[in-house]
Amino acid sequence: MNILLQGGQILTMAQEEPEILQTDIGITDDRIAFIGDIPAGFKADKTIDASESLIMPGLVNAHTHISMSLLRNYADDLPFWEWLMDRIMPVEDNMTSDFAYHGAQLSIIEMIRSGTTTFADMYFFMERAAQAVDESGMRANLSRGATFLNGDEDLAKLEESEHFFKEWNGKADGRIKVDIAPHAPYTCPPKYIKMMGELTKKLGCNTHIHLSESRKEVEDSKAEHGKSPIKHVFDLGLFDSRTYAAHCVHLSSEDIKIIAENNVSVVNNPGSNMKLANGFAPVTKLLEAGVNVALGTDGSASNNNLNMFEEINLAALVNKAVEEEPTVVPAYTALKMATINGAKALGLENEIGTLEKGKKADMIMIDLKKAHFYPRYNLVSSLVYSAQGSDVKTVFCNGKILMEDYKLLTMNEEIVCANAEISAKKMTAGDNK
Amino acid sequence: MNILLQGGQILTMAQEEPEILQTDIGITDDRIAFIGDIPAGFKADKTIDASESLIMPGLVNAHTHISMSLLRNYADDLPFWEWLMDRIMPVEDNMTSDFAYHGAQLSIIEMIRSGTTTFADMYFFMERAAQAVDESGMRANLSRGATFLNGDEDLAKLEESEHFFKEWNGKADGRIKVDIAPHAPYTCPPKYIKMMGELTKKLGCNTHIHLSESRKEVEDSKAEHGKSPIKHVFDLGLFDSRTYAAHCVHLSSEDIKIIAENNVSVVNNPGSNMKLANGFAPVTKLLEAGVNVALGTDGSASNNNLNMFEEINLAALVNKAVEEEPTVVPAYTALKMATINGAKALGLENEIGTLEKGKKADMIMIDLKKAHFYPRYNLVSSLVYSAQGSDVKTVFCNGKILMEDYKLLTMNEEIVCANAEISAKKMTAGDNK
Repeated sequence: MNILLQGGQILTMAQEEPEILQTDIGITDDRIAFIGDIPAGFKADKTIDASESLIMPGLVNAHTHISMSLLRNYADDLPFWEWLMDRIMPVEDNMTSDFAYHGAQLSIIEMIRSGTTTFADMYFFMERAAQAVDESGMRANLSRGATFLNGDEDLAKLEESEHFFKEWNGKADGRIKVDIAPHAPYTCPPKYIKMMGELTKKLGCNTHIHLSESRKEVEDSKAEHGKSPIKHVFDLGLFDSRTYAAHCVHLSSEDIKIIAENNVSVVNNPGSNMKLANGFAPVTKLLEAGVNVALGTDGSASNNNLNMFEEINLAALVNKAVEEEPTVVPAYTALKMATINGAKALGLENEIGTLEKGKKADMIMIDLKKAHFYPRYNLVSSLVYSAQGSDVKTVFCNGKILMEDYKLLTMNEEIVCANAEISAKKMTAGDNK
Repeated sequence: MNILLQGGQILTMAQEEPEILQTDIGITDDRIAFIGDIPAGFKADKTIDASESLIMPGLVNAHTHISMSLLRNYADDLPFWEWLMDRIMPVEDNMTSDFAYHGAQLSIIEMIRSGTTTFADMYFFMERAAQAVDESGMRANLSRGATFLNGDEDLAKLEESEHFFKEWNGKADGRIKVDIAPHAPYTCPPKYIKMMGELTKKLGCNTHIHLSESRKEVEDSKAEHGKSPIKHVFDLGLFDSRTYAAHCVHLSSEDIKIIAENNVSVVNNPGSNMKLANGFAPVTKLLEAGVNVALGTDGSASNNNLNMFEEINLAALVNKAVEEEPTVVPAYTALKMATINGAKALGLENEIGTLEKGKKADMIMIDLKKAHFYPRYNLVSSLVYSAQGSDVKTVFCNGKILMEDYKLLTMNEEIVCANAEISAKKMTAGDNK
């Protein structure tokens, strides 16, 4: 199958500085066949007029919990512990495999509509998330988020993680990768973090973890282990495998040094960190230290959307105010965080994250025929400071069209929304049939 | 003309706590005829199915510079003085009356599309902004932003302001009000601030001004006048008239006391303050002091959009992180800032800002048939934490439909965008023919 996108403006994200090409781009099966002149022998089975579009890599949401969309707007503006302990965790106990599937489908629709083609998810009932990913055509790194709050009786989660890896890693035409996810140091005692780290090494995958999200977490870690969460898991050998760590809000300069030296990727979650009042991550310092900083929405119980264009905008805006310096996190840097840096975090930088010949055809078309895209001085600024997620009109993942001209092609939105509404109401009412 | 909106969810914004009515709402000519049962004798000339919509008051953008949309994305990620002096001001000198009109039209389309029905504008060539407002059907408080950097030779701006008031105040079926705008204390020496204040009193209108936007402005004021910008203009008698002051980022507790005691409304501009690295306004302290806090986008050279749903979201998120307290600026407070508080700032609280029988029919319909509006636990949270400006499907101002089911009815978007593009390129190239 050959697809030709004609006459668009192509933001490749492949160079250090922004590169926008006004040319054609072709897809053969799941890969980018060419950018530029149409090669001899390329016959398009389908041609798309891209003359009023900007084409860029699909966005990478490097940290989320997709089934939690069932708890979107269920509990807001509350003190953190009341939110988590009294509202979120009790109803999460009612989550079933079917509810998780409906929540996953709802989130995937929202992500496709706002330009995300790859996401990293950590939750439970992951085989149902995998099913939703497989059916939808998306790309995802999935991991069973394991807590060991009950000690050895939670050891089954290790087996479950390994089983999930064997069942799903590399499946769905290679779109699904499985990672290992010790949830966080405050929910996984040292011995289990070590065991999870060893499992990751054995399987040769990545580690997905929450680190240093709240001020309290860091204080508790110092009181219990005599060191920060970062130093603590580093000492436990967790960083021996490629790691992407969500949040990383409260970091010392020693923490940043450890992160940089161990090539840990930080997934910045500005929306969630603000909403839950955890504060502002030291993004500028991390970038200065050469850390690979990616972006994520977090789950929709704490954000409350999966719209990466909002996170891109927040990442660029907020750090300027925090540093009182308008030149930090310029537009292109924020876009890198949402594309190639996300790909690097997930170990997919050779396949996705930029538009280059031979890479997987994961790309989105932005509809430039909107008042807020005029005048057209600088499309990189436009994407970061003026765009909305709803400006995404067409989405490709692995060479397949998931949305064309705002129409979803792989999912039935009406049915997914209706199922999600019913499952959400049942779950919060304690009716888990 | 009678319009009936049937079966919607109506967020009135008229109560201290959120009130959502599942009922009908009717419009007769320019006013809300009823909310609830259809009164005897009301015959609808047009009926709109609102069963999948949330109806709320049109948003009030209480501080912007609409013609500056021609400079959107023209100069970003730059140090403030380089941005202003080397990039923005030189090309602003090329602004013509026609360019200003094209920029105004572009901004009005963007505002209608994202749910704003009233805005407060401060700029020059204001008769062209007024023309665009008149033709579009929007509501606006307009003011000639006057700087007196050249001393007495700028006195013509006082006459211009008064002339503009006489020409346009109360025009366009009462949709246009004219205010007086001394630009800022750092561009208006004391004698001119006093003269502007006296003119405002004489005309019985409001004052629109920029105050305490940057740290430098406050330091300079202390060095020059021995007091903060707030105390300085207060001592000059400016607050004798109703005043709405944009930004107010760097405030002392004495400043907040003066603001509260003089019923000055603060227009919070979180997006602009972050992008230009001016910091975070003390919104929580202002609200605690009983100050009326409204919201504005600022102009699109410094934001770079006029999407009030972004400002609502930012206002709710950012202050939680600044205070490290998730309960501050809850969703409903952020919505009040964008509706009734904006109306109060502009002296329009008896006419707009809430949905109540007898008030002007300025209202918007939000399209709830989107994945990110599921599940539907709490629509107030949805509007603040999940919505995009593009979820606005239908817009009424003064009882007239400006957009219906995403179609603009009073303006030709294609022509407006094309004109704006041409004018912007001419202006920045120095070709002001």
